[in-house]
Amino acid sequence: MADAPLYGRVAIIGLGLIGSSIARAARRAGGAGTLVAYDQSAFVRARVAELGLADVVADSAAEAAEGADLVIVCTPVGVSGAVAAEIGPRLKVGAVLSDVGSVKGAVVRDMAPHVPAHAVFIPAHPIAGTEDSGPDAGFAELFQGRWTILTPLSRADDAEVERLKAFWTAMGANVDAMSVEHHDLVFAIVSHVPHLIAYNIVGTAADLEEVTQQEVIKYSASGFRDFTRIAASDPTMWRDIFLNNRDAVLEILGRFTEDLQALQRAIRWGEGDALFNLFTRTRAIRRSIVEQGQDTAAPDFGRRPPAKTDAPQ
Amino acid sequence: MADAPLYGRVAIIGLGLIGSSIARAARRAGGAGTLVAYDQSAFVRARVAELGLADVVADSAAEAAEGADLVIVCTPVGVSGAVAAEIGPRLKVGAVLSDVGSVKGAVVRDMAPHVPAHAVFIPAHPIAGTEDSGPDAGFAELFQGRWTILTPLSRADDAEVERLKAFWTAMGANVDAMSVEHHDLVFAIVSHVPHLIAYNIVGTAADLEEVTQQEVIKYSASGFRDFTRIAASDPTMWRDIFLNNRDAVLEILGRFTEDLQALQRAIRWGEGDALFNLFTRTRAIRRSIVEQGQDTAAPDFGRRPPAKTDAPQ
Repeated sequence: MADAPLYGRVAIIGLGLIGSSIARAARRAGGAGTLVAYDQSAFVRARVAELGLADVVADSAAEAAEGADLVIVCTPVGVSGAVAAEIGPRLKVGAVLSDVGSVKGAVVRDMAPHVPAHAVFIPAHPIAGTEDSGPDAGFAELFQGRWTILTPLSRADDAEVERLKAFWTAMGANVDAMSVEHHDLVFAIVSHVPHLIAYNIVGTAADLEEVTQQEVIKYSASGFRDFTRIAASDPTMWRDIFLNNRDAVLEILGRFTEDLQALQRAIRWGEGDALFNLFTRTRAIRRSIVEQGQDTAAPDFGRRPPAKTDAPQ
Repeated sequence: MADAPLYGRVAIIGLGLIGSSIARAARRAGGAGTLVAYDQSAFVRARVAELGLADVVADSAAEAAEGADLVIVCTPVGVSGAVAAEIGPRLKVGAVLSDVGSVKGAVVRDMAPHVPAHAVFIPAHPIAGTEDSGPDAGFAELFQGRWTILTPLSRADDAEVERLKAFWTAMGANVDAMSVEHHDLVFAIVSHVPHLIAYNIVGTAADLEEVTQQEVIKYSASGFRDFTRIAASDPTMWRDIFLNNRDAVLEILGRFTEDLQALQRAIRWGEGDALFNLFTRTRAIRRSIVEQGQDTAAPDFGRRPPAKTDAPQ
């Protein structure tokens, strides 16, 4: 493209699903002059070089951050503080530091103290992903039509917030801003607690004595399999999310359990109307999600029946 | 096909997603000589005639069942007893009565007393469906590669069980048999409780004061939207399932809640290892489901990103 890139030098720390998708999408969008990558795993660094995801594969996070105009930390949130401690002193004057963590309060708590006054910290959270992990799982279209949320810490950063917003928009995302606290509550309900109950129901099923694991697998098309997709997400990432968004998750879990106990009571006492009314209300929300392009309108997510094969035993 | 159809005259009572899919699949497979359809809704009857789903659209369930070699009741399970009371006296000698209900104990309790001794009752449950409802939602491939479970009531019915099995196999299904009681426990865990917790989390989200419904919809790609698909299923059908599989659902719900409280405690006390171990264990189950052809291997169910449009507000 004829225009100059939004950032001359962009460093990505952590090349998993999200980091490697940013590398691919930023390159395609022309958002970075030079792309620098670092991952703490030597295996991932080698793979990034093989795949040609970056112009430079650095030997340390500090080296990657050195001289960068934009540094995006894409590690599990549990180590974001340690990464910030390492790169903070190396950030150049005017550098922008950002991240992609699914919780923002703990990330700000852990990273902000290491950001020097001459740099700007703008936390971010792209609402996109799949159940797969690692540099091979990423793809340039991951952020297309999805939301990325920025949680700026000060109005003084407005100009840099606009530039970061343009960077995400160039990668196909819609961009919103909100406060750190509100973010963590919103994502407790739309993401964290749903993941927790998906992990939980899969665990409950695996532990039943009267129903074999083979039966659970064979008959999973009746609802269960949808939960197993979510419950196949990266264990380290999700452990860190729950440990780092504790208060909001416990708050939402409390409400979830209270509501579930009311449903349980309705079933025990045969209160069909209470069930019917809830089940009707929830349909409307699905309709809005499809109408607003946040999910496919195709029944069953457009999954096609498998080819006919011999029945597995 | 050169072979004679498995059943001369097949009556389908209730032409929703499942009933209309059986009509389409049976015709394509040549499993029925004559297809007779009845639905209590005049609108659905008219639509069935328009779509040409059956050879005959009857004016009552009794008329549809008259002279049929196979009658399949595809209504919500809450009315299966009333349907059986109406058609039982009209079943001819040697007729097979079956159903497609997601619970079997209550269906046997409600239907069996109305089946005359000269007919055979073989309860059945095809493990297939989408979140859509009605005669337009059905399609001939719905049962392809999916399981259908028969819960025969007596060894004396073995020959008829084999014929019904062949009928389902011709429609693309794999067929299994198990006891009524075991069926209801298996489906409480793989289907009924997963649906209940999906309905419940969508309800909890809708009722939050601090997070708007619009935010829930916008950011639903972070996990929540998968639950809304399940929570968009037919309200009448699911009310009846919970009321009619009460004991097994309450038993599994008790275990689910117990396990969830242990996770909640692990989060409160920062026990990361307990979370990590569960999250690793649940990944293996997903892998088996994909390997056995019960779900797609494509990340995110193969959903593609939406076309880039202006951000909805």
